[in-house]
Amino acid sequence: MRTTVGIIGAGPAGLLLARLLHNAGIDSVVLESRDRAYVERRQRAGILEQGTVDVLRAAGAGERMDREGLPHDGIELRFAKRRHRVDFPALTGGRSVMVYAQTEVCKDLIALQLKDGGPLLFEAEALAVEGAETDRPRVRFRRGGAEDVLECDYVVGCDGFWGVARGAFPAGQGRTFERTYPFGWLGILADVAPSHDELVYARHDRGFALLSMRSPSVSRLYLQVPADTDAESWRDEEIWAELERRFETDDDWVLNRGPITQKSVTPMRSYVHEPMRHGRLFLAGDAAHIVPPTGAKGLNLAVGDVVTFARALAHRAETGSGELLDTYSETCLRRVWQAERFSYDMTTLLHRAPDATPFEERLQLARLDRIASSRAAETDLAEAYTGFPLG
Amino acid sequence: MRTTVGIIGAGPAGLLLARLLHNAGIDSVVLESRDRAYVERRQRAGILEQGTVDVLRAAGAGERMDREGLPHDGIELRFAKRRHRVDFPALTGGRSVMVYAQTEVCKDLIALQLKDGGPLLFEAEALAVEGAETDRPRVRFRRGGAEDVLECDYVVGCDGFWGVARGAFPAGQGRTFERTYPFGWLGILADVAPSHDELVYARHDRGFALLSMRSPSVSRLYLQVPADTDAESWRDEEIWAELERRFETDDDWVLNRGPITQKSVTPMRSYVHEPMRHGRLFLAGDAAHIVPPTGAKGLNLAVGDVVTFARALAHRAETGSGELLDTYSETCLRRVWQAERFSYDMTTLLHRAPDATPFEERLQLARLDRIASSRAAETDLAEAYTGFPLG
Repeated sequence: MRTTVGIIGAGPAGLLLARLLHNAGIDSVVLESRDRAYVERRQRAGILEQGTVDVLRAAGAGERMDREGLPHDGIELRFAKRRHRVDFPALTGGRSVMVYAQTEVCKDLIALQLKDGGPLLFEAEALAVEGAETDRPRVRFRRGGAEDVLECDYVVGCDGFWGVARGAFPAGQGRTFERTYPFGWLGILADVAPSHDELVYARHDRGFALLSMRSPSVSRLYLQVPADTDAESWRDEEIWAELERRFETDDDWVLNRGPITQKSVTPMRSYVHEPMRHGRLFLAGDAAHIVPPTGAKGLNLAVGDVVTFARALAHRAETGSGELLDTYSETCLRRVWQAERFSYDMTTLLHRAPDATPFEERLQLARLDRIASSRAAETDLAEAYTGFPLG
Repeated sequence: MRTTVGIIGAGPAGLLLARLLHNAGIDSVVLESRDRAYVERRQRAGILEQGTVDVLRAAGAGERMDREGLPHDGIELRFAKRRHRVDFPALTGGRSVMVYAQTEVCKDLIALQLKDGGPLLFEAEALAVEGAETDRPRVRFRRGGAEDVLECDYVVGCDGFWGVARGAFPAGQGRTFERTYPFGWLGILADVAPSHDELVYARHDRGFALLSMRSPSVSRLYLQVPADTDAESWRDEEIWAELERRFETDDDWVLNRGPITQKSVTPMRSYVHEPMRHGRLFLAGDAAHIVPPTGAKGLNLAVGDVVTFARALAHRAETGSGELLDTYSETCLRRVWQAERFSYDMTTLLHRAPDATPFEERLQLARLDRIASSRAAETDLAEAYTGFPLG
């Protein structure tokens, strides 16, 4: 097989990249190790930054999002029983976010790709990237029990943290940056209307909690738990009782309960691989960087990466200049580090560290008090939450 | 002896309080364990917030400050050889700071107090505060070899971290919050014109450095060093060479060298005692809270405390209501915790922790990049640096 851009992975990064390239008249082939049903079921993030929304619309993939997604103009910070709303459009000159699950974004992009795009091969497992330093890189992959080779001009690894693409970088030349957290999120889906019309981020002495949603009738709720927690060790009743405690207010706010349809524990990690390019192999999304979910930045960073790559390649096609491809890593990493910083700050602002000192607890409250009382501090948060500029 | 307000300590907090009370027609006596020459020689902070400048002027203690002090409209952040200026008035609606050494503030306030104020007793060592729960608290003190008692309506402990006032709080009722840092500042005074007309805060892989000044001909410079460093273990030549490394830029900026007239190492600590009031005993300044010097907040917090107390007592004299005295601790602590937060953030932003991971180093650079590229983040810093609102 032969194509211009070989894309490993049909998550949101790989699928959006295929669409952007298709729209620019550039061939691609997507290799995905799982089957379609699995990809369309995977529960992940659900908050799209303003820039991500704009990109999906411009790519022709925004129709169902605009119909079914929930535009959100703010979030609530809850601490010391207080409730403080951050008003995004007022603070950022009109920017906001969209609640629309990543899994829905993937369904939309798959449907488009299968309708009029290049090959999107499910159950095609990439085994290795070879010849990244040459102008003919190859992806070896296995499909239907047989091995095959995809010959490319460029390969983009959108295959996540555990993918094979990063392994093709020469050992010892790059650098990795990492932080793990001693806690994770116990997340549930529940068939009940969300108890608040915007996300609620709660800092509580017992730990962090987050109220989110998938639709007007499905709630998504999270509890900070120790990192090694087994989701099944929490009974439904215990989950609701703990959520109620952590969302406590000094008014008459009530948490709606309903049947829990899914439970899982997400680990929390910060990770960056530098650089994000080796020869003609480019990394995008989780293959290059991971953020803890607190700032809702993971999917949005992946979108930024593939937009940057697609622009750079289109620039090359139009002008013959590889300049933007050459600066791909640097361009992406500046935005990546801002998102890493923000995600780390949101995490440490709101979670209870097992070894937190009383001084550090007071610092958390002083930070929240600052955000609630300084327009500058609040704007800094709102700008970051609604998204850093692309490219 | 009998007075309305017994003030322990003739540092800037105690001296300014005596002046504010004098101006409000309220009697006070100041007890200071050291002699006048010692108090007037003590080298401490040198940055006055806008609010502190305003208070000193309004108190009639601003004449020499306005003549000899250096108004500063910004600071420079230096990192990765870059130079970024933070323009205070442009970001805060006209606020700025004044470089005028604490020791000069003390001289001015001592001169005023000796001219027309109440008793200011040097070499009068407070031994204990008694009867704080009664309406006749007393300070036992020793002067000229003999013990004496100062009977008061109120006692204000302005006697610093090591003073006796805090010891009169009942054991087990208050809470303390503390953080020590594994580094300190090696500070020098040098007879040479400052190398820059504003303060320069440098984040470098080798550690933090700060360029400050006492006058147009005297430089004040600091180097981050391990906490247990002996100042005399650094030769002058080594200090200048290290300062040059840490202040490196990518332009032709030059560090001026000159004779070093003083060397010392300052430890770094964050500390808060809650509450700041017990009965008729009030704590102000370092007696209640310590900040690391990075944000230049120590003196300015002390000023906030004594302004709050003087206002509360004047309110009581005018209206008979003790309401503001009752909320003294709460009012001060809100501002204290904002300064603790800011001082901690400036410290961790700029210093190299001995155990810093590569991830944390990149976070520092991302934070600095954010401040240099977001008006909101920069405004947040400028507001905090020029000072949080009084009361």
